[in-house]
Amino acid sequence: MYYSSQSLERLISELTRLPGIGRKTAQRLAFFILKQSDEDVERMAQAIVEVKKNTRYCSQCFNLTETDPCPICQDNKRDYTVLCVVEEAHDVLAVERLGQYNGKYHVLGGVLSPLDNSGPEDLTIQGLVARCKDGVKEVIVATNPSMEGEATAIYLSKLLKPLGPKITRIARGIPSGSDLEFVDEVTLLRAFEGRSDL
Amino acid sequence: MYYSSQSLERLISELTRLPGIGRKTAQRLAFFILKQSDEDVERMAQAIVEVKKNTRYCSQCFNLTETDPCPICQDNKRDYTVLCVVEEAHDVLAVERLGQYNGKYHVLGGVLSPLDNSGPEDLTIQGLVARCKDGVKEVIVATNPSMEGEATAIYLSKLLKPLGPKITRIARGIPSGSDLEFVDEVTLLRAFEGRSDL
Repeated sequence: MYYSSQSLERLISELTRLPGIGRKTAQRLAFFILKQSDEDVERMAQAIVEVKKNTRYCSQCFNLTETDPCPICQDNKRDYTVLCVVEEAHDVLAVERLGQYNGKYHVLGGVLSPLDNSGPEDLTIQGLVARCKDGVKEVIVATNPSMEGEATAIYLSKLLKPLGPKITRIARGIPSGSDLEFVDEVTLLRAFEGRSDL
Repeated sequence: MYYSSQSLERLISELTRLPGIGRKTAQRLAFFILKQSDEDVERMAQAIVEVKKNTRYCSQCFNLTETDPCPICQDNKRDYTVLCVVEEAHDVLAVERLGQYNGKYHVLGGVLSPLDNSGPEDLTIQGLVARCKDGVKEVIVATNPSMEGEATAIYLSKLLKPLGPKITRIARGIPSGSDLEFVDEVTLLRAFEGRSDL
C-alpha cells in the first residue's frame, strides 16, 4: 500500500523520472512542495512550463536563448573573428563565468560518438562551416577532454583548417590545486606535452 | 553573465529552492526538462500544482489524504483499538510497506523540540488524547529513536497512561545485517536493555 493521496503518488512518480532522483529523494521533494505556499508552488510549475515554451536554439550559435539571435550573437562589442566551439549550452555558461573571453560561441549539441550513433550530421557542424567562411580568424575547440571530445576536436581541425581560420585546442593538464601524485597518466602526459616556457 | 534564456534562469533558481538540490543539480534537471516532450513537461507541472490542491490532512489521524477521513481511518477491517503514533506521514508509508500492521495510525506532525520552539500545542496531541478516550487498548509509539523522538515518547507515555491504554515503544537495537563492532554505544546499550529470551 502506498500513500492515501493519489496526487502525492503521481507527483512522486513524476519526480522520479528526473535524472539522479530516486524514490526516496522524490518523496522528500514532494513533501517539501506540499509545505510550500500556494504561490510558490504555482510559480515553480509555471517556470517548468515556460522554460519549454520560451527557450529555443539560437540560429547562429545554437546556444539556448529566448531571442533569436541570442544576446551574445547580437553583441557587436564581441569579437566575431574568434569562435569558441563547445559541446553543450551549459559549457557556454562555464566559459562566460570566467569573464575573460570576448569572442563568440558555437554550440555543437553533442560530440561525435560512433557507439551512440552520433555522427557529424547530428551536430551543428554545417552551421559552423558556414560561419568559418565568414571572416573567422580563430576557432578555439573547447570540447571536453574525453575520448569523444578529443576525436571531435581532431575531426573539426581537419574539416575547418582548409577554410582558413587557425584552429586551437584548450590546454589539457593538471588542474590547479591538484597533486602530481594523484593525477592519472594521460593527464600527466598531456601536461608534459603542453609545457610552456617559464 | 548567466544563461541567455531568462526562463531557464528562472527554472534553475526555482529548482535550487528544493532541499538537497544545488545549482549544478538544478541545471542538470532543467536541461533534462528542456529535452522532454511538451506533454511530459505539462504533466509534471500539473502534478506539482495538484498535489497542493488535492491533498489535505485526515481529520482523525492527520495522515495525508485526498478523502477525509483517509482510507485507513475508513477501513473497518482494521483494528481501531491499536494506534501507531508516528512523527510524519511518510512514516505511515514505512510501516504500511511491512504489510503486517493492521491497526490505525496517528500522525503527530513533528516532535517535541524546545530548541526549535516546537511544543505539544504544535503537534496533533489533542486529537490523540481524544482518540485514546475512545476504546483504544494499545498505543505503539513509533517516533524516531532520536533525542527528540525519545523525549516525545516519554511525554506521550506520561500523558496517555492515565487514560487507560497500554503504551508501548518500538524496539531500539542493532539493525539486521549490521555488525556489533561498528554500532554506536547508545544503540548497543539499547540492544542489551531490550534483550529477549531465546
